[in-house]
Amino acid sequence: MANLDERQIISIFQRAFIDKRLALEDVETFRIGKKLVVIKTDTLVFSTDVPQGMRLADAARKSMVACVSDFAAKGVLPTYCIISVSIPRSFSRSDIMQIASGFRSASKEFSVKILGGDTNESKEPVITVSMFGIAHQIKPRSGAEEGDVIIVTGPFGRTRAGLEILLYGRKAKKRFRSLAKNAVFRAEPRLRFGTLASRYITSAMDSSDGLSTTLIEMARQSRKRFTITNIPMDADLEEFAKSNNLDLMRLVFNGGEEYEIVATAPIRNICKLERVARKCGIDLQVIGRVENGVGVILERGKVAVRDGGWSHFA
Amino acid sequence: MANLDERQIISIFQRAFIDKRLALEDVETFRIGKKLVVIKTDTLVFSTDVPQGMRLADAARKSMVACVSDFAAKGVLPTYCIISVSIPRSFSRSDIMQIASGFRSASKEFSVKILGGDTNESKEPVITVSMFGIAHQIKPRSGAEEGDVIIVTGPFGRTRAGLEILLYGRKAKKRFRSLAKNAVFRAEPRLRFGTLASRYITSAMDSSDGLSTTLIEMARQSRKRFTITNIPMDADLEEFAKSNNLDLMRLVFNGGEEYEIVATAPIRNICKLERVARKCGIDLQVIGRVENGVGVILERGKVAVRDGGWSHFA
Repeated sequence: MANLDERQIISIFQRAFIDKRLALEDVETFRIGKKLVVIKTDTLVFSTDVPQGMRLADAARKSMVACVSDFAAKGVLPTYCIISVSIPRSFSRSDIMQIASGFRSASKEFSVKILGGDTNESKEPVITVSMFGIAHQIKPRSGAEEGDVIIVTGPFGRTRAGLEILLYGRKAKKRFRSLAKNAVFRAEPRLRFGTLASRYITSAMDSSDGLSTTLIEMARQSRKRFTITNIPMDADLEEFAKSNNLDLMRLVFNGGEEYEIVATAPIRNICKLERVARKCGIDLQVIGRVENGVGVILERGKVAVRDGGWSHFA
Repeated sequence: MANLDERQIISIFQRAFIDKRLALEDVETFRIGKKLVVIKTDTLVFSTDVPQGMRLADAARKSMVACVSDFAAKGVLPTYCIISVSIPRSFSRSDIMQIASGFRSASKEFSVKILGGDTNESKEPVITVSMFGIAHQIKPRSGAEEGDVIIVTGPFGRTRAGLEILLYGRKAKKRFRSLAKNAVFRAEPRLRFGTLASRYITSAMDSSDGLSTTLIEMARQSRKRFTITNIPMDADLEEFAKSNNLDLMRLVFNGGEEYEIVATAPIRNICKLERVARKCGIDLQVIGRVENGVGVILERGKVAVRDGGWSHFA
């Protein structure tokens, strides 16, 4: 039987038991009285998600980053988490202490208290983090309105470039090499910006599945067209793509794991958002506008953006 | 470097980041106003936790059973869960549909709504379930009082016997063989009993790590001695142990994965507890009494029970 890709697998699970009325969101929620318990579970599988050369402490941190980034996009501060660690019998005390220290410092970095967890023996290391927060509401993927601008919290393609450098030995200038590797090893989720900016935006989504996937999902859920006028990348990336003969657009749109926030906002809020971004040390970029219609297109050449973001099992 | 067992690993993680004032419990909790959000995360690793011959749907169910059983011991009804599924690329559509159908029917069986989850690619299948419920309080492991009786919700050793039959081809009478295999493949967590009995008991713990571990932990947290007067097993198990030359006491005390509740209660509540047990179709057994002192001893011969319950990495 043909192998399935991640989306097909998700769709089997969804058909089997997920409430069809629920929109797919970055986080799950349930209500207690007027409060919303916000939950995100994310699994880090070492053979898939941890490239050679990554420190164990950074792998542990990354398992929390994925959850933190989803909270950031929804404008919610995470407060607690539970960690499930499965590791091979061959792991040494020092390996385990490095993982533990990665969790401890990530817990401080993101102000998320670790409530507990469980440990298991497995053939390869797998870490699942379940993270919790309390909110009155979450910023949905679906709220984009006609006339809104589309914003992102940073450049795209760096993480993919970093993986190309690490896995395939691609060449890069020293400064970009360091930025790209850092994007892989120690991504910075936009938690402060996400929570402060939440009141000024109409929709948001964490971009970790890739920019194209993120834009397409937001356009679909908002029932609008997203027109991209400005591609969010730095000049160094363009040079890196050219000198290594890589497709620049694929790096930017289909890279994945950038942990940036993609959001939409009324034009009148741009100044306020820029002020928040400056406060958080973030280089906010306006990359397009929301129009009536469907899908995502590049204005230059009217090219439709296809959904090519990262998908496991592809 | 010498390999560590599960307890040593847990202790490294605990020293690294868990709040020392928190008592180890079957579940984690945090407060929202007067309500307690009760959480349990448990991971099922196929190479460790799923014996050959187990259907994929039952493996999916087992990943929920482990959490449900912890809620049962704490007297709390679980209401929601999130599932993280990591599977190898070689899994077919039919494999995935069996897993999905196992989750769907377990979700109905235990009245736990699946909110969402994530899927990943991995070398071996790993399922992590995070389960949630709301309560005003949980029944602690630490509440046993002098003079209380110690009760259990069923016989011990059957699961270990089932594994001996499945993994090592041990012989057993047809009826016991079927009971023992069923204990492995489709364990029955005592959710209804646990929630109805909660008001009549002083302390409780899920026994899935083995009877000895459970008793020792409850005695330690309660700062009492647990004296065992009556070993919770059926005659069939005794015969099975004898005919296969297995240590009966090890089967009973160090088996693990029975998913029974071990609890303590004032003598005056025994009749009420027996009434609840009958209503739930459960064969409640009084196995001992709580005394001043420390540790767990077998009254017959004054033998101390050592902590030999199941531990990964042992």
